[in-house]
Amino acid sequence: MPCSPPITFLSDYGDADEFVGVCHGVIARRCPTARVIDITHGIPRHDVRAGALVLRGALAYMPAGVHLAVVDPDVGAVGPHARRAVALRSSHEGRYLVGPDNGLLSLAAERLGDVLEAIDVGSSAERLEPVSRTFHGRDIFAPVAAALAAGEPFADLGSPVPVSELRRLALPHAAVRGGALMAHVLRADHFGNLILDASPEQLVAAGVSLGATLSVQAAERIHTARYASTFAEVAPGELLLYQDSLEMVALAVNRGSAAEHLGIERDGELVVRAA
Amino acid sequence: MPCSPPITFLSDYGDADEFVGVCHGVIARRCPTARVIDITHGIPRHDVRAGALVLRGALAYMPAGVHLAVVDPDVGAVGPHARRAVALRSSHEGRYLVGPDNGLLSLAAERLGDVLEAIDVGSSAERLEPVSRTFHGRDIFAPVAAALAAGEPFADLGSPVPVSELRRLALPHAAVRGGALMAHVLRADHFGNLILDASPEQLVAAGVSLGATLSVQAAERIHTARYASTFAEVAPGELLLYQDSLEMVALAVNRGSAAEHLGIERDGELVVRAA
Amino acid sequence: MPCSPPITFLSDYGDADEFVGVCHGVIARRCPTARVIDITHGIPRHDVRAGALVLRGALAYMPAGVHLAVVDPDVGAVGPHARRAVALRSSHEGRYLVGPDNGLLSLAAERLGDVLEAIDVGSSAERLEPVSRTFHGRDIFAPVAAALAAGEPFADLGSPVPVSELRRLALPHAAVRGGALMAHVLRADHFGNLILDASPEQLVAAGVSLGATLSVQAAERIHTARYASTFAEVAPGELLLYQDSLEMVALAVNRGSAAEHLGIERDGELVVRAA
Repeated sequence: MPCSPPITFLSDYGDADEFVGVCHGVIARRCPTARVIDITHGIPRHDVRAGALVLRGALAYMPAGVHLAVVDPDVGAVGPHARRAVALRSSHEGRYLVGPDNGLLSLAAERLGDVLEAIDVGSSAERLEPVSRTFHGRDIFAPVAAALAAGEPFADLGSPVPVSELRRLALPHAAVRGGALMAHVLRADHFGNLILDASPEQLVAAGVSLGATLSVQAAERIHTARYASTFAEVAPGELLLYQDSLEMVALAVNRGSAAEHLGIERDGELVVRAA
Repeated sequence: MPCSPPITFLSDYGDADEFVGVCHGVIARRCPTARVIDITHGIPRHDVRAGALVLRGALAYMPAGVHLAVVDPDVGAVGPHARRAVALRSSHEGRYLVGPDNGLLSLAAERLGDVLEAIDVGSSAERLEPVSRTFHGRDIFAPVAAALAAGEPFADLGSPVPVSELRRLALPHAAVRGGALMAHVLRADHFGNLILDASPEQLVAAGVSLGATLSVQAAERIHTARYASTFAEVAPGELLLYQDSLEMVALAVNRGSAAEHLGIERDGELVVRAA
Repeated sequence: MPCSPPITFLSDYGDADEFVGVCHGVIARRCPTARVIDITHGIPRHDVRAGALVLRGALAYMPAGVHLAVVDPDVGAVGPHARRAVALRSSHEGRYLVGPDNGLLSLAAERLGDVLEAIDVGSSAERLEPVSRTFHGRDIFAPVAAALAAGEPFADLGSPVPVSELRRLALPHAAVRGGALMAHVLRADHFGNLILDASPEQLVAAGVSLGATLSVQAAERIHTARYASTFAEVAPGELLLYQDSLEMVALAVNRGSAAEHLGIERDGELVVRAA
């Protein structure tokens, strides 16, 4: 058998049900040689932004191939809430993205380079008929991803969409003002760690360096934190600022939950400065 | 290496322990080229009926090959509770089923067509010795499934069993009487959605059409529901009748639990009619 | 493509996040033909001993290849808590172990035979730069495991370490004295079953035979148990001694938790004798 590029797969389908397994089956029927690498199926249900952030971070470690992602709260919607089903061809040689056009793919696409070509695959000839209203992962996205891995020409899998029409995620933007970093919570992970929109460069610009004691203002209260490289550098229950394994700046409480500790949620603003 | 047909694998082993991984290892030792597709291992523990329903629904999306399934509450039992370990050859070209003969395989076997041949694999030469009393997935079923994938002749893997002796599941049967649909709960899924024994044809026969308002009588109380194609068509907390992704008729509460809402359990009876 | 030996993978990374998927991606980039068999990622967080016991038990069912294992509470530590990152070549033809040198690999290495050669891979040329402080599974262990599977010569992947310097786990030791078995709890599993350090031979030496009624002294109280081959041989709520599927002697309560029932934790002592 010829060799196919791998398919990576990220979703919010969870592990309790057969949804992921059914998509694997659909892929194996269409492209028996394609290996599927499950990035994670533990994205919080319907959390497009968390999916987009994890996908962007994980792709750096994935082989080139077809990147299938499904976090799709508007699946089956018609009218104003309808979203396109799309496949994108990246300027990064041999990388394709397949999923709903709700912003889920946008951060990964930016990170990979330019989107050279986009198609609407909602009516692709590869679809499984009858297409359900609730499970486009199985009926549209997995078949299209498998067809790409099987070598089907990209343009044959859907109808062209102007790249400028693709949905992007509206993310908050951290800024440095008056020696302080104004940052926001992009998402909380399963441990209550808060992933921020700040870059390591912005920390430097705010005069915050590794090992420093910081003041963190959140929800009108001021907390003390430390800019550390591992959790073990602060005592249990204490707050730390660190770079997580996907190189995002984050806040955590050693053996605790920063989300609870700070009483702050997604998009909440934080002011961080050297103490 | 030669190419083997894939092995699909469904069980109630869960993801917390090494049971699934050990079965994968056993398969890889016996048939290194066989790809294993995990349908799910999240079947509720010992729930043979739920396993049988999910297996039946998922097989339509799986490539032909060996379908290994283990939900086995009577593993290791002797005497009146003993069950056979079996492999079945289906009339559907190239499809085999392997698992305990407790009804788990029966719905899938019916859906695939006729069982042409059945063997008892409990004493198969492929068994791992010594066979444990508790883990026949590892010691009997995985080795037999792998041997089939490796091309071992079916009849060599066990001793013949008359097809008429295979256990079948006793499922309730929905019926239409006096313009009403009398249906039963086959199982509840992880969200509390109730999967019913009714067919879409029976809904039509009961005069129930998509978009209609329904009355649903359960546990001596009457509820209002809507026959919808997606959850979003009813308000949060409201009851809907729909077809799930495996094409089963089901009852759900948008963002809630129909099992709790209706106070009804497996095999409970419901009367559905147009309101 | 040439064929690579499989890589087995055990960790405490869990299934909720992308950690396991990212390691799979790293492996696929370095060695696209290597199949990865996930033994389990449900080892309790930071529980090196549980990981070592499960790895030892599971390896008997795994094909020869590279055995990657990561339970690594001291990842990124410097100074007195630092641990080596190692790869071991076993006397068991074609088997390698890769992971932190904190005892995790030691029980499996002993079971496989002798360690013929050990290397420190912490500065391996295969590392992903920059190496994070928190995710050596991705940055060191997965790349080294993949390089081994790709056929890279063992000695080229790190610097030699004397085998005598490898960390071993300090486990308690059961003993038979005065007709009684003095045993200890090695770990509790997800069900509250208590895995003991006793061997089947020690049960025989203590005069305990299958089917016998036993007295079990734990935390200064005496309980009655039965030496059974399956849970179903005792009533719900009753205590049994049995051999688990990895052939460890264990205590369980049928449909309950032996850990709660006996009020005993890891390393706790038990005295078992025929009643």
